[in-house]
Order: sequence, then structure tokens, then C-alpha cells
Amino acid sequence: MTANTIMMCFKVAPSYVSGPEFQSRLKKAGELALGELSSEPRQLEVAKDKLFIFTGTSGSHAVLRTYMTGLVTFDVQHFGEGEEYEWNNGKYDMEAIKKLKKNIEDLFGSAVENANSLFAPIRRGGQVWTYGITADERLMEPDYDKVSFETNSPWQNIKIMHSRELGNVLLLDDDIMLGESDLIYTQTLLGLGNPKRENYEGKEVLILGGGDGGILHELLKENPKFVTMAEIDEEVIKACRVHMRSVCGDSMDKFEGNNYKIIIEDCIKVMKEDLEQGKKYDFVINDLTEFPVDKENYGFAYDFKTTHLVMELALQLLKPQGKVLARGNSKSAVDYYPLVDEDIIKLGGQFKRRDAYVPSFRETYCLYEIWKV
Amino acid sequence: MTANTIMMCFKVAPSYVSGPEFQSRLKKAGELALGELSSEPRQLEVAKDKLFIFTGTSGSHAVLRTYMTGLVTFDVQHFGEGEEYEWNNGKYDMEAIKKLKKNIEDLFGSAVENANSLFAPIRRGGQVWTYGITADERLMEPDYDKVSFETNSPWQNIKIMHSRELGNVLLLDDDIMLGESDLIYTQTLLGLGNPKRENYEGKEVLILGGGDGGILHELLKENPKFVTMAEIDEEVIKACRVHMRSVCGDSMDKFEGNNYKIIIEDCIKVMKEDLEQGKKYDFVINDLTEFPVDKENYGFAYDFKTTHLVMELALQLLKPQGKVLARGNSKSAVDYYPLVDEDIIKLGGQFKRRDAYVPSFRETYCLYEIWKV
Repeated sequence: MTANTIMMCFKVAPSYVSGPEFQSRLKKAGELALGELSSEPRQLEVAKDKLFIFTGTSGSHAVLRTYMTGLVTFDVQHFGEGEEYEWNNGKYDMEAIKKLKKNIEDLFGSAVENANSLFAPIRRGGQVWTYGITADERLMEPDYDKVSFETNSPWQNIKIMHSRELGNVLLLDDDIMLGESDLIYTQTLLGLGNPKRENYEGKEVLILGGGDGGILHELLKENPKFVTMAEIDEEVIKACRVHMRSVCGDSMDKFEGNNYKIIIEDCIKVMKEDLEQGKKYDFVINDLTEFPVDKENYGFAYDFKTTHLVMELALQLLKPQGKVLARGNSKSAVDYYPLVDEDIIKLGGQFKRRDAYVPSFRETYCLYEIWKV
Repeated sequence: MTANTIMMCFKVAPSYVSGPEFQSRLKKAGELALGELSSEPRQLEVAKDKLFIFTGTSGSHAVLRTYMTGLVTFDVQHFGEGEEYEWNNGKYDMEAIKKLKKNIEDLFGSAVENANSLFAPIRRGGQVWTYGITADERLMEPDYDKVSFETNSPWQNIKIMHSRELGNVLLLDDDIMLGESDLIYTQTLLGLGNPKRENYEGKEVLILGGGDGGILHELLKENPKFVTMAEIDEEVIKACRVHMRSVCGDSMDKFEGNNYKIIIEDCIKVMKEDLEQGKKYDFVINDLTEFPVDKENYGFAYDFKTTHLVMELALQLLKPQGKVLARGNSKSAVDYYPLVDEDIIKLGGQFKRRDAYVPSFRETYCLYEIWKV
């Protein structure tokens, strides 16, 4: 069962909403939306505005709200039982939504200056919750049609959603990490796209995070001397090994091979130990989430400091001519990435930022190549 | 002023919603959402379910609906005056939405099986209506921050919206046509990407539609013998000439040049005349909208027949070895593009379909290369 809310709005002359014509047409608005009403519309006062509530014999309801400025919002909530109301089994009736908007517009007549509607209802109660937001907090509704996998590890909620368009997509605490569609992310971060910028042959590499296995898998094709991967959450690896195989291939089937090792450990601890032991790398690749797993405890401010600490340690671990390659944030997160830029400079680094449109993120992402001056 | 609706839902044990504990906590739910209430919650019956309406002294309101299955929807509508509530001038408070959801979850306690919320409110009444849908009718909220241009031509509504991420985007009757970010569309359609598939040097080309000028502009770089463009709506050209200049360059500044001509005319008429006169082309490029300008009169069924007719005429206009290059539809429109495939075969054509992720569409689009068997 899903509850489907159709949401529309009308801008009318402010005098119209308090006038008798509007009042006389309200009941009809409810009927257009719900069919037969189960009672007369109820009216409530809210500050200087009004709220009209309609209930239908079908069990649906609608709420119309007026504002003094002339804005009228109209929310109509239907419910549907059966698979046709689930995202993954078909469509709601967009034409019916368009028609309802047009009918209400006609009902209020020439007083209407403009009319808008979401042409997709907000659907709640289905098997899969598909709504998400972009980095700049705009709504999006990916085409997830099933949960391929879900578990709560000691660190986080791990979900692998299936997108009809993009294949499986890994989400950690509901933040999109990587989809099967996103080789562009891995290639841009590693400099292995077209043109190829980096040569990993005979090089020593440390991956921070990277539990989806994409970075490890692409690196191992480049004949490196040795790759160490420090991922805190073994459950992510186990999930991706099965459900993100087009990303990680067989690279995570074993935790250790001829020229690589996966360590289940906090990467900060690994880096600190490496520093103590004088271990250095040609490349340190930061593939951590923007929101490290302790976000519930520390929040965003601390996260950023963590990122800062990660970058500081990573830069210290570089051989001469070494590089840190790091994920940043979405380009739309305009409050965030300039701080990363600043931080790199403060730490004595220089950088080149490359932007790539990552399909599963449904937006452009910033990726960093960082070296010491 | 905008009205911002926060939308959440909770799945609880069905017995819980009809029990006394739930009833006793309802008022608190309203207070968490609205602050001080201006009256006791109102309760209405809807079929076998209940509707609770809350009004706040601030003028905001909230509606809680229960369903027998245990689904609870809770919609909280705040309004805000001032620029901070407009998309283009800042953000709503996502953290407050997350906190409210958490607080309601805690209020209903262990009865809650799962809880979800849109972390962006639905915002109505602002200067710019940003919501749209994908080809498979999923909601999206592009980051349009202003209307760069708008007019109603005799044929259609022409809008050029500005996206923070993608630059200007052309919409015809609210369908996204092309953004300044979308060279990939033009290159894939023309076979001028990497690898380059087509050679236009010395060739004769007919463009159907193409009012944004992207096809014409990229073609003219390839030294063709002559390009004819048949676009029905001069107003589209005038708008794009100014606001989509990174797409069309100076190619539409004049309607005629050494090796090209823009005809303001229905392309079907142009093709029929060409056929009568025995005129043939090396390439016919279909860059028409999926919904031709007569959709109000004929609807989608007729549209498809139009497309069919366009393809039939285009194939007849080809020189031996000639090609039709045509836009299809979004890959997610799974009901639509197989019909295009079928139609091509029926008309005696063969085709290769190429898919490109087009940034302003925010999804993958199908593009066709068609030749006669």
C-alpha cells in the first residue's frame, strides 16, 4: 500500500481567496480531487489564513491552504493497494494529475495568475524508499526498484539499491557512495581515464577506505608493486564482493594477494603506524566517505577536521614526487569544497581539481590530485 | 513567500495507531512540528482511518493521517517570507527536518518499524518553479535559480532556465531540450565524439528542427558542402542566439551563409517539397522534440505517427549510402523507444542506437543512426 500525495499550488489575486466566489467553489475543488465527499468541507483558521479539509467516501483526503499573499496550496492524498502503486511495478497516472491541475485552474478562473504541480505524487509506504537529495539539498527520486542488500554493520547502515538505469548502487547511511555506472569516478580519481595521467607500474599505493573495491580493482590492472587498502568496515567489502562485482571484479575475493593486502582497520591508525615505521608511498588515495563513520558522535564540524587530519597524514606519507589523490564533494556543495581547497594550501600542498559527472550521484563531483610544494 | 511542506512517514504496528498510547502522544507530535498550537488537534474520520489537523500560533499547520496497515503520514507546512526561503538564495534547514523526524520516531517509540522523510521540503510559491520529472516520471528538482528568458511563441512556451551547475537550459512547453552542458548530446547524435564516426566534408545535410543551433554549429566546423535547417519556430532561434550562445556560437546570427541556410518552416513541408523536386541528402538529422508543437491538438498518439512520418520522409530523402541521424527518447522511457526501433525496421531501415548520459536531462538518452538496407 502506498499513500500518494499530489501537490499543487495556485497564485491568485489576494482579494480572491477571501472573497465569496472562492468560497463558493471550494466544495467543487474537493470533489474534483476526491470524487464524492463524505462530509461538507471543514474550515479552520490559521493565523489570518484558512485551511479547508476534504474527506472522500473513497477514504482519500485533501487539504487546501490559503495564504494572504494569494498563494493557494492544495494537497490531495490518495492511497492505493496493489503492485501498480509501487514504483517498481508501474506508473501512477500523470495525465490524471495534469488534468486535475487544469480543472482546478479552470474552476478558479481568471483569478489564477499561475498554477504549478508536481507531476509525480509523493509516494509513501511502498517497499522501497527512493527519495534522496543532492549535495546541495535538492530533491531527487532515483529509479531504485529494489533493495539488493541491506545490513547494519557496527559502523553504519549498508544498502545496495538496484537502479533500473544504473545497476546496483552502494549507499552508506543513505549517502550514495558508488554505482555500477560510475567507472568515470574511479578513472578520474586515479588519472586512468582518457588521457591517462598516472603510471602505477612498480609503485606503492595506500588506499584509504575504498570498500567498494573499484579503486583496488582498477589499480591492480596497472601492475603496481604493492597496494595496501585500509577499510574499516568488513561488511561493506562482503556486500560489494557479491553485489557490486562489475566494480570490484575478483579483487576482494581474498584479503591478500601477490601485490596487495586489504586491512580491516581505521585508516588513521594505519597511517600513524606507517609514519612511526617510516613507511612511504608513491600514492595515497583517499576514497573515504565525506561523512566518516563517527558522524553520529561528532557531526559535520568534526568530520571536516578528520578529513583535514587524513590529508595531513597522507601528505606526510608521500615519497618525494608522491601524490595524494582524493575525493572531494559534489560541485554543488559550494560551501564545502572551497574549504578543502584552502586546507590543502594550508598544509603546504598544491592541487589540481578535476570535475566529473558521476551518473549515480546525478551531479558533478570534484576530485583532487595533490602534491607537496 | 514560500510554503514549505515537510513530508514524512512512519510504519508502525497496525494495532498501535488505534491504541490509546498513540492518541495520547498526538498532541505532542503537533507541538514538535509546529511549536505552540493555536487549538487542540482536530480529528476527522476518513473511511476506517483518522486524520488529525494541527494549527500553530505561528500560522503553520500539519496534517497527520493514519492508515489501517500501520502507515502514518505526517505533513508539516511552514511558510517563510524573505529571500532565505527561495531556492536561489539559500537553503532550508535540513538538519531541522532530520531532527523532527527523529523526534517523532522517538515519540512513537518501539512501535515504529521504519521512518522516512523527504530531507528537502516541497517548496511552493517561490519566484522559480524548479520541479520537473524524468522521462519515466520520477520527480526531480533541477538547480534552476532564475528564468533567463521566457516567451510564448505562436507554437509553444519557450523558457530558458539558468542552472547553477549546468548553465542555461532550453525548455519547450516545459520539456528539457538542451543545456549548455550537453555537447555530448550533439556529438553523439552527429557521430563527432571520440571516436569520430562520421565525415561531413563536402556533404549535404538537412537538419529537422534544431532551433538551439547546436547541431548546425558543430556541423559547420566540419566543412560540409551545404547545410539546410528547417525550424518551425523563429522565436526559439532568437532566444538561443542570445541565451544559448555557448551552444550555437554565431551560427544563427544570420539565417544564411556560404554553406548553410535556416528556413523558418514546418520540416514536413520542406521534406515533401524536396521529394517533389528530387532533392537528396547525405544526412538528414532529426533534432525535433518528442512532442511536436501540435501536441495540444493531437496528443501523444498522433505525435508518434508524426515521428513515423518524419522518419519515412527522411529515409526517402537519402542519397545512396546516406544516413538519418535521429534523437529518440530517454532510455528510461521503456514503453517508447522499442516502438521507434520497430518503426525503423518496418520502414526498411537498419539502425544502431547509442546511449549518452545527457547532463541537463539528468538521465541517459537514446540516439539513432539509421540507414536503408
